[in-house]
This record gives sequence, structure tokens and C-alpha cells, in this order.
Amino acid sequence: MPRPLSLHPDRLFPSDPAQRSIARRLYALVADLPIVSPHGHTDPAWFATDAPFGNAAELLLHPDHYVFRMLYSQGVSLDALGIGNPAADPRESWRLFAQHYHQFRGTPSRMWLDWVFAEAFGMDVQFGAETSDLYYDRITESLATDAFRPRALFDRYRIEVIATTESPLDDLAHHVAIRAANDSGEWGGRVITAYRPDPVVDPDYEGFRDNLVRLSELTGEDAFGYTGYLAAHRGRRAFFAEMGATSTDHGHPTAATADLSHAEAEALFARVTGDGVSAADAELFRAHMLTVMAGMSVDDGLVMQIHPGSFRNHNPWLFARYGRDKGADIPTATDYVHALRPLLARYGNDAGLTIIVFTLDETSYARELAPLAGHYPALRLGPAWWFHDSPEGMRRFRAQTTETAGFYNTVGFNDDTRAFLSIPARHDVARRIDCGFLAQLVAEHRLEEEEAAELAVDLAYNLAKAAYRL
Amino acid sequence: MPRPLSLHPDRLFPSDPAQRSIARRLYALVADLPIVSPHGHTDPAWFATDAPFGNAAELLLHPDHYVFRMLYSQGVSLDALGIGNPAADPRESWRLFAQHYHQFRGTPSRMWLDWVFAEAFGMDVQFGAETSDLYYDRITESLATDAFRPRALFDRYRIEVIATTESPLDDLAHHVAIRAANDSGEWGGRVITAYRPDPVVDPDYEGFRDNLVRLSELTGEDAFGYTGYLAAHRGRRAFFAEMGATSTDHGHPTAATADLSHAEAEALFARVTGDGVSAADAELFRAHMLTVMAGMSVDDGLVMQIHPGSFRNHNPWLFARYGRDKGADIPTATDYVHALRPLLARYGNDAGLTIIVFTLDETSYARELAPLAGHYPALRLGPAWWFHDSPEGMRRFRAQTTETAGFYNTVGFNDDTRAFLSIPARHDVARRIDCGFLAQLVAEHRLEEEEAAELAVDLAYNLAKAAYRL
Amino acid sequence: MPRPLSLHPDRLFPSDPAQRSIARRLYALVADLPIVSPHGHTDPAWFATDAPFGNAAELLLHPDHYVFRMLYSQGVSLDALGIGNPAADPRESWRLFAQHYHQFRGTPSRMWLDWVFAEAFGMDVQFGAETSDLYYDRITESLATDAFRPRALFDRYRIEVIATTESPLDDLAHHVAIRAANDSGEWGGRVITAYRPDPVVDPDYEGFRDNLVRLSELTGEDAFGYTGYLAAHRGRRAFFAEMGATSTDHGHPTAATADLSHAEAEALFARVTGDGVSAADAELFRAHMLTVMAGMSVDDGLVMQIHPGSFRNHNPWLFARYGRDKGADIPTATDYVHALRPLLARYGNDAGLTIIVFTLDETSYARELAPLAGHYPALRLGPAWWFHDSPEGMRRFRAQTTETAGFYNTVGFNDDTRAFLSIPARHDVARRIDCGFLAQLVAEHRLEEEEAAELAVDLAYNLAKAAYRL
Repeated sequence: MPRPLSLHPDRLFPSDPAQRSIARRLYALVADLPIVSPHGHTDPAWFATDAPFGNAAELLLHPDHYVFRMLYSQGVSLDALGIGNPAADPRESWRLFAQHYHQFRGTPSRMWLDWVFAEAFGMDVQFGAETSDLYYDRITESLATDAFRPRALFDRYRIEVIATTESPLDDLAHHVAIRAANDSGEWGGRVITAYRPDPVVDPDYEGFRDNLVRLSELTGEDAFGYTGYLAAHRGRRAFFAEMGATSTDHGHPTAATADLSHAEAEALFARVTGDGVSAADAELFRAHMLTVMAGMSVDDGLVMQIHPGSFRNHNPWLFARYGRDKGADIPTATDYVHALRPLLARYGNDAGLTIIVFTLDETSYARELAPLAGHYPALRLGPAWWFHDSPEGMRRFRAQTTETAGFYNTVGFNDDTRAFLSIPARHDVARRIDCGFLAQLVAEHRLEEEEAAELAVDLAYNLAKAAYRL
Repeated sequence: MPRPLSLHPDRLFPSDPAQRSIARRLYALVADLPIVSPHGHTDPAWFATDAPFGNAAELLLHPDHYVFRMLYSQGVSLDALGIGNPAADPRESWRLFAQHYHQFRGTPSRMWLDWVFAEAFGMDVQFGAETSDLYYDRITESLATDAFRPRALFDRYRIEVIATTESPLDDLAHHVAIRAANDSGEWGGRVITAYRPDPVVDPDYEGFRDNLVRLSELTGEDAFGYTGYLAAHRGRRAFFAEMGATSTDHGHPTAATADLSHAEAEALFARVTGDGVSAADAELFRAHMLTVMAGMSVDDGLVMQIHPGSFRNHNPWLFARYGRDKGADIPTATDYVHALRPLLARYGNDAGLTIIVFTLDETSYARELAPLAGHYPALRLGPAWWFHDSPEGMRRFRAQTTETAGFYNTVGFNDDTRAFLSIPARHDVARRIDCGFLAQLVAEHRLEEEEAAELAVDLAYNLAKAAYRL
Repeated sequence: MPRPLSLHPDRLFPSDPAQRSIARRLYALVADLPIVSPHGHTDPAWFATDAPFGNAAELLLHPDHYVFRMLYSQGVSLDALGIGNPAADPRESWRLFAQHYHQFRGTPSRMWLDWVFAEAFGMDVQFGAETSDLYYDRITESLATDAFRPRALFDRYRIEVIATTESPLDDLAHHVAIRAANDSGEWGGRVITAYRPDPVVDPDYEGFRDNLVRLSELTGEDAFGYTGYLAAHRGRRAFFAEMGATSTDHGHPTAATADLSHAEAEALFARVTGDGVSAADAELFRAHMLTVMAGMSVDDGLVMQIHPGSFRNHNPWLFARYGRDKGADIPTATDYVHALRPLLARYGNDAGLTIIVFTLDETSYARELAPLAGHYPALRLGPAWWFHDSPEGMRRFRAQTTETAGFYNTVGFNDDTRAFLSIPARHDVARRIDCGFLAQLVAEHRLEEEEAAELAVDLAYNLAKAAYRL
């Protein structure tokens, strides 16, 4: 007999009765607020074409590196899971997943998936070996219905606005199509882009020079000259802003910034666009470009996001065989105090600029990021990110940043996901954890409940809209 | 209608009923103990002259960089707050503060200020835009009364002893005056100094060479020769000890120590007192001087405090315009294991010496500082410092140091503040948090309540007196 | 009147009533499971000879560096405690310990010792100055009885299997004797060895070249040639495996690994076995040998343990006078992401290999180790180690690793101790803390209680057996 599946209404609240009852009251104020998703990786093609999603494995297993990395760590073959292997039978891959589902106990993937199973698909028994086919069939059949097409889910999920992330080389055709659907009254969903220039900013990015060729073509600028290169950025940023972008995003290996003179930058640019780029030059160019991007944000008002500190593609065999984004990106210790100083010295006192910094290194929360954000007008703290987008991770974020940075130097929640089906689950976890954190403050008489009620709404909704200018 | 302001008697205690009732009993034992304040930055002129404090903004806003850095981070102009701008109307600055007071929710500044408002000034409505003038007038009027003059507050606050911090170049005239008042029976308050030699130890300190000129004048030694320089230190230390000092304090950028031979030290001293000091020489000289200072402490019995790890004046524009101590000092990752080894190798086994180490890098609590303090007889751990002088910070300190260092390698609480009005609030927070921590141990049957009762008094009172030899 | 001593049945459980009642139910399932001790430092001579232990000080004070380092940190002389000083009267040393016992409040040593006092020796009053002689006599008399001989305690403690740790240079005579006792039916206890090759792998180890001479003699290989050296390792590993070993153990100062070509390795080996080894060569050789050892584990199936990050013998005066393992080993910040990459790139994708990594740097739990273990099939996380083998340390371990690595990439508990008497106490602490952690997940509706019940047994018993192939 499979075990029943149900989502407890008090899940993720503290178990202390005083805290729990406060958390319930606070959560009631935010549970049904619309979703503002200012940073993520959903595919705009879904909303442009509104084509149905495929089968259960294609939707919930193959794209989710949180899920298959855990299975892989426990000895399950990626080939058998259908990763990079279209020949695998999706039902068999799904069965493998089901057999190993107990290995997700205590992880956020388990919570998000159970929410999708119960809320999106109406399952009432737990996922596992004996319910694998039941799940596979129910999900796959549901996906074939109109109610499970992307736009219908978007509306059902009450998403007020969602941002995707694109390269400057993207023509934004899907965003153009969505805008047309908006304008024609065909569909009202608000889907915006964000400017992610890593492919044309990072000399170590695959195809960097080819990317500059393409950038030149797209913009009509000579992107191999520093002046033309900067003009090309300005042009693409303006186009992205037309397509709704309110932000840029920068995923560098470190948080290093630099502020070179024009002549130094020009010479460096010549080197990094030439042959045999040195690691030091590549790092310096990325560092300098963060400061340049901040300057452009001062001009065009795009909010700047910095996502540093991931050692990408740590597993060379896996990278060679399966490519990027296969669960082998590992966080590293990340300095912010020295790294961000050149940028902050130049632009940090500008209260009209917003720079949102994220971290994978929690040691920086209380030591570096909260003191920096609690001082510089331009700086805000992004929410607990990636591996830390989890109940314990979010609690540590609040416990370690609030006393120095306050709540108002933070920016609400980001789901940062390509797992579209789970977006409401992710926002719900953040709302519950934040309400639980506030409830603790109230129960310990560190905050009045009326104030906590205002904060709960700010954290769930207002701060994201304000910080991202949505 | 403004919201009521009241301080809940159970504030900061855990909300679990079992823990709370134990915490209440423990707190009752320590709530009214006198305040021992062995490290801080109050101005001895207050107690020497007993002149009234000025208006609300002058007392509570302008000197408190915890407060105005947060306002600045949220886009409020320092000029408008009256920072470095005597032309600002203090009532208008105070109104700006009031309008933004909600941004302090969840911060220790909020708790300390609410205590000052409620306990010191008897306010019973919350501070905010609509009560700004009420607050300004009540506080400013109160400060004009005798009951709010420094000595009266000192007595009302039941301060048993307070240490200020002075440069070797200070003539300690205010301490001389206070001693005279003590001796004449005019006032009984015990105010002592502490020896903070950074201005004549750190070659990067503003005016280092001018400071050595002044040191020579004060002591009659040639402070530009290494032998005379050491003699000058000895002389000033002896004078500080006469003026009540029981400790020295060292605020270096890192915890580096070195133990050079006399010849090496002499050569280094010649370089750092000459032109064009290198960064490496400056660091090495600071490092060497920590070991020298420890040696002098072995001789004269002054307790040594090391406060490393702050990147001072991180914001160059702000520093140029407003100067030091404007909320732009940011902690950095700090190594202790390698850094302290030369000093500890030389003096760490001397049980007659006390070295109290502080940190802004909480990662060192369990990893480095607790193991070091749990081994070396000379080493003790200072309490949670600066950004970590907060409920969550103190809880992390106890949770991360106690199991390896025990309670008896810690030294009680330091308020480390220039915000005189809030001193009882700060000690009260520490007492409540420590009682809550002990209550958890008792409730989880990790400690007997009788033992916790002894510990509560030790942490609130006895350990500070013993460690600082007060 | 001495205070009573009793062990509360709910000790270490959360005090929240909902969590506590769940924790009690979970603990009831695991409290009486046999002890699996896959990593530790008990002396095999105890079980081979079954000679009685000596007096109280010899058994509980002299070998326990957790205990005497704390006393030393509080100014107690090691000589007076009998450390390195056979002339000290053990009863007097014991009295000193007793007088300072309150300094252990809040430490795991206190919990372990109280368990030993109450459960092993039946004491019912607290240890302290006034009960010192009572304790000394009761313990010393008990140790003279058959019931307190090593094998009797082993059986009474229900130890299913215990691993000791030996150098390749050890002839394993005691293990041979224990096997003989097993085979003859004289005694059934299972005591196995583990292969700890640091003395012949670390060029900085005392007597490294002498150790290679001895290795050559033991194996008949020329351990001064790289080929013979590797063959010697293979030979000793095979012999250890015959004597029951299922694992190797590596205690390097850092987690650095390297993967040199045979020619590079041969040249390096020539340098490190020659005169004047450089620090860089020593580090590179240790690094390379970790990868070599992983390769041998692929072949012979021994589970590999890596215990990095301790700065050994930090106190030079103490080391010169008292030697190793005197409480002066201090953890350092430890990188894993870059350090382990060469080894993982070579062998990390091999699901047939098991590498268990430990850390003394808790910052790596969530940032590095959980992401690595949640990806690489060969990698598992060892439990909270050494200074972190404590209630708070274990809670941090679970809170910081579970969400990314899950429970099934961890390996149960290690007691890692030479304090034989306290082994059940240590496992009991781990079981209680794990049950408390699971209880919190259940009480917050993040896990079903039925699942928690399965996990409790896995964490207490099954995972250790599976990971260590016992």
C-alpha cells in the first residue's frame, strides 16, 4: 500500500505553538498574493508558442539538475535517466527516479516535487516504486490537456510578472511574439527578459570571439574595437529594455570588479579579443566590465544583478560527455569586501542605482554582505540562492543578514528556476519561512505583530516589485 | 494613532515555554547586577565636566554610526541628517530619522533605542513620523535637567566601573579630573582608561611620524630610535596604569603577529619611520609590536585586547568628505591560527598573562578561536563584537564556542560603545540572551539549573571582573 | 552535600513538546541497536591481552586530550596532572581534575564523562572537589574486577564491530592475536584494523626515511624506488585487508590532491626521499599519493577516508616538552573544491569506489562538501568530526548538509576515539541528536514520521555498515 500524500497546512512553520500561531496569521496575509518572479530561467518559447509540455520525464526529470545530480551521486546512471540519451525509454527513466525517491528526504527538491504532484496533478499517494506508473500516466495525460499548457498554468499560478534571462545575442523573437499576443489581447501574461551578457563579456566563455562577430552583426557596431563594443552593449541593453527588461545579470566566477582608465581598458580589450588570453587578463576584463555595466545602469536604469562564486563544470568527464548544467557546478569561498570595492568606490554612493548581489558562500552574509548593504545606497542583497534556496538556507539568510542590513536592504524572493511547474511551490516555501522567521521575532518580543504583518507583505511582494522596478 | 511602546518583560527569551520559564528564573538573578563595562568608547570629558548633553539629534543620531549608516544605505542624505553638516536643523534631521525608523525593524539598534526611549525618557508611544516632534521635545527638554547629566546617568545606571579608550598621546586630563573628583568625594564613579597605541604602532595611521614626535615630547624619550620607542611605550603604559588602566587594546587590520630579533626589529623600525613605508613592512611592524606589547603585559600586568579584521574606510568618497567612523568599516575573513602563532609560541603558555581576542569573522569561532582558547593558558575569547553584538550574533557566539572553549575561557560582555545612553540596554540584551542560551541547555538536560544559575552570574558579572582584573 | 548525578531520559532532545515526543519515539527504535564503530583509535592490545585498565587517572585523564587541554587552558599544570610526568601521584592529579570539573560545563567531555561515571561506574553524585576521592576509589577498584576488563566491556557495550587505526609499519600482532581468539572460540569480539599510511606518505612525518627503510624490510620491496614503493603499499594494504581492514585513512594538513604522470611522480619521489625536502614538494607528494591511494582502492575495494585540515602541534614549547596529541592541534580554513578536483576528475565518477571526506572547517559543509557529495558517485560525507563531534556540531552538520546532499550521502556516526569507556556515550549522543533533528523535520511537516523512523535506523546503524562495507 503506498503511503498517502498530503501537504500539511502548517508545513515549514516552527513547531513551537506560540510561533506557529503567529506564523499562521502572517501567512494568511501573503499566501494568495500574486507571484512576482524577477529572476529565473523559464523558456520564453513556452509562453510564445503555448505548445503542450511532453511526458513526465521530459518535464520533471530531464531538465532538473537538482534532481538528476542527486540520483547520479547515488550511483544511478545518467544515460539510464535519459540525460543526453534520447534513446532511453522515458517511462523506464521515470521508474528509476521513483525507486530512488526516498533519497530526496529532507531536500527542497522533495518539497517542490510533492507540491507539484499534489497541487498541480492532484496525486494523493506518495511517489515511489509502486506508484511510478500511476504517476507517469497521470502526469503525461494531464500535460496533453489544455489546462496544462504553459499559458494556462501561468494564469492558474497567478503570476503577475516573470523575467527570463537572455544573451545579448538572442533576437528575443519569443518576447516579441509574447508582446504581440499581449497587444492583440490574445493573452495577457507579462513575460519580460533580462540582459545576461556573459557570452560577450567573459573571454573564457565558449565561442567568445564568434560571439563578438555575432554581436557586431546584430548591432552594426565593430564589437572588436572597445568603443564599438561598448556601443554594442548600449544598443542591446536598449533593445532588451524595450522588450521589458528591467535588469541585467552577471554570472562571474568571482565578485572581482575593476575600474580601469579608458586607455587601460582599450589595451586590455585588444588582448582579450586576441589570441592566447591569459587567465589574469580574462579575470581583469570581467572585473572591469562589471563596473562598466554599473555605469550603463546609472544611465539606463536597469537594475544590476551579480551572481558570483560558482566553479562551473567541476567534473571534466561529465562535462565532456553531457555538457553544462548537469549538477557539477560547485560553490567556492568568495570575497566581496575587496572584490566589490572598485565598483562601489565609483558608483556605490549613487542612490539611483540598484545593484543586487547574491552569494553561494554563506560566510559572507553577516561578515561582508550585510555590512556592505547596510552602508552603500546602491547595494541590495539578493535572497538565499541556489543550494541555499531551501528552508534552512533561507532561515540562515534572515538570521545572518537582518540584524546588520535590516529587511529593507533585501529584495524579496527569486525562484531562479527553469522548473516552471514548481514556481508556486518555491514562492510558497519562501513565504512560509519568512513568516516563520517573523513569527519568532514576534514571539520573542523583538517585533510587534502589526509590524511583522507589514513586513510579511513586503517580503512576499512589495520589495521585489520595488527593487526590480516592476 | 501612534502605536504604543512598551518593553515586554520576556523579550529575547526563547518562546518555548519550558525554556522561557527557566530563562526568567535565571534572568531574575542577574537583571539588577551592577554594570561592569571593561571596554568602550564613551568620552571621559562627560564624566570630568558633567556638562549636559545637547539635543536629541546631537545625542542619539549624530554620534551613532550604526544608525546613520542604515539610513544612508536606504538613500537618506548624510548632510540632511546633520552628519558633518552643522548647518542642518537638528529637528529636521530628527524627523528624517523618524520617517525611516521602520527600516530598523529586526536590528539591535531598534532594541537599544526603544529601551532608551522607554526607560531613559519614559516614552510610551512608538517613534515614527507622527511622534517625531514629541520625541524631539521630550528628549531635548529632559537633557537640560540635572537628572540627565552624565554623572547622574552613570549613577542611575548602576555602573560599577567603565573603561574608556585613549591614545598614548592623550594627556588623560579628563581622567585626572575624575580621579580628583573621586578623591575629593565630589563624585564616586569609577572611570578608567585603556591603552590604545595604534596611532604610534601602525605606520599607516594618519600622522604616524608626527605622533612619534609627540610621543617623544611626552615621554622625554627619543621615539625615533627603537630603544627609546620601547621605553616610551613602557612609560606611557605605566602612566595609563596609574590612571586606572588594566588593559591595552589593539585594532589592527589583521591578527598577524611576528617575533623578530632585536636587530631585525631595529632595522624594520628604521624603515617604517623613514620615507615610503611599504605595505609589507607596515604589516610586519604591526605584527611584531603585538608580540612586544604582550611581553610588556607580562611585565606590567595589563590585559591585552586584540580587535582585528576590519577593513576601515571602505568608501573613499565618503571618507574624503565625512572622515572616519561613518559606518563604512567592513569585516574581512580573518585567519587566527597562523597569524597568532608567533605571539602564542612566545607567550601563550604564560598563565599569568591574559590576551583577549575578538573577531568579526564568525567562521573562526568554532574552527580557530575556541580550539586556541581551549588550549593556551594566556588566551581568552572576547564576546560577540560590533556587527555581532546582537541577539542572533550572541547566540551564534555561545553555540559555536562553548562546546570547545567552555564558558570559562570567555570574559563576559563588552558594550564597546560611545552611545552612553544605551549602555544598560546593551548589557541587558547580553544577559537575556545568555540566560536564554543557558535555559536551552537546562531544558535539554545538558546542564543542571543550579549550575546555570552560577553561570548566569559569572557571565553577567564575575568573568568580566576577573578577566580584566577589575 | 554533593549534587545528585543522573542522566535524564530526555537529554539532548529538543524541548518543544511536539518535537520531543517524536524524538522519544524515534530514539526508542535505535537506542539499543548494536554499536558499529568504523573509525577510531582504541588500542588493539586491550582486546588482544585483555589486561585490566589501571587507575582512574590513567584511564580517564591521562589519555584524553579533550580533558587535559581544557584544564591546561585554565592554568592547570600538565605536570601536576601527570601528563608526561609519571612521578605525579594519580590521586592528586585526579583531585585537580575534580576541582576544575565545573569548567567543562556545556562541553561534550562533560556529557561523555557523566555517562561513564553514571552508567559504567554507577556513580549517583556529581564529580567535584568533595567527591574526588570517592570517584577515584570506586573507579580504580572497579577496574580491578573482571567486569571492567576490555573484552567484558566490549561485550557489555554491545559493540558489533570496531576498527582501530594502524601504520603500514605495524605488524598487526594484536589483530593476529584477536583473530586467533576469535577462531578458537575464546572471544567473539570483532576488532578490525584500518590502513593509515601517513608515516610513509608524508615526507614531513617524523622519521619518514627510517619509515621507508622499515617498509622495505617488511615487504621485501625497495621502498626507495617509486615502483617498489607502490608495490610495498599494495602488499601492506592486502595484509591489512586480511586482518579485517575495510578502509584506509589519511590525515593530511590540507585536502590537496594531484594526479601526476608516472614520470613526474617518479622524479618527485626521488626528491622527497632525498635530502632537504621542500614544503611544496612535500605537499605535492602527499597530494599525489591521495590519488594513488584512490586508485588502489578502486582495485582492492578499501574505502578511503580523508581527514584534512588540522594544524598539528601548534604550540612549539608544548610539543618539545610533551610531544604529539596534547590538545594543541588547531583546525584551519580548508578548501575542497579546488583541492579534491584532480582526484575526483580521475576517480570521482566510479560508483564502485567510496571516498569519505571529513572536515574541521564547517564553512565547507553547505558551500563545498554537500554539493560535491550530492554530485560525485564516489564521494560521501563523514560525520561531524573532532571539535564538532558534539550536540551543536552535529546539529549544524545535519542542518547544513542535508538539503543539498540528503541523508544518503552521509555515512552514520564515527566515534573516532581512544576513550574506550565513553564509546556508548558518544554513539548515544549522535543517536539522540539525529532523532531530534528528524523530529524537527517531522514536527514542521517536512518529513513523515514513518520515513523518519526508517532514517533513524539508517543513521544509527545501516549507513555505517553499508558505507564501510562491514
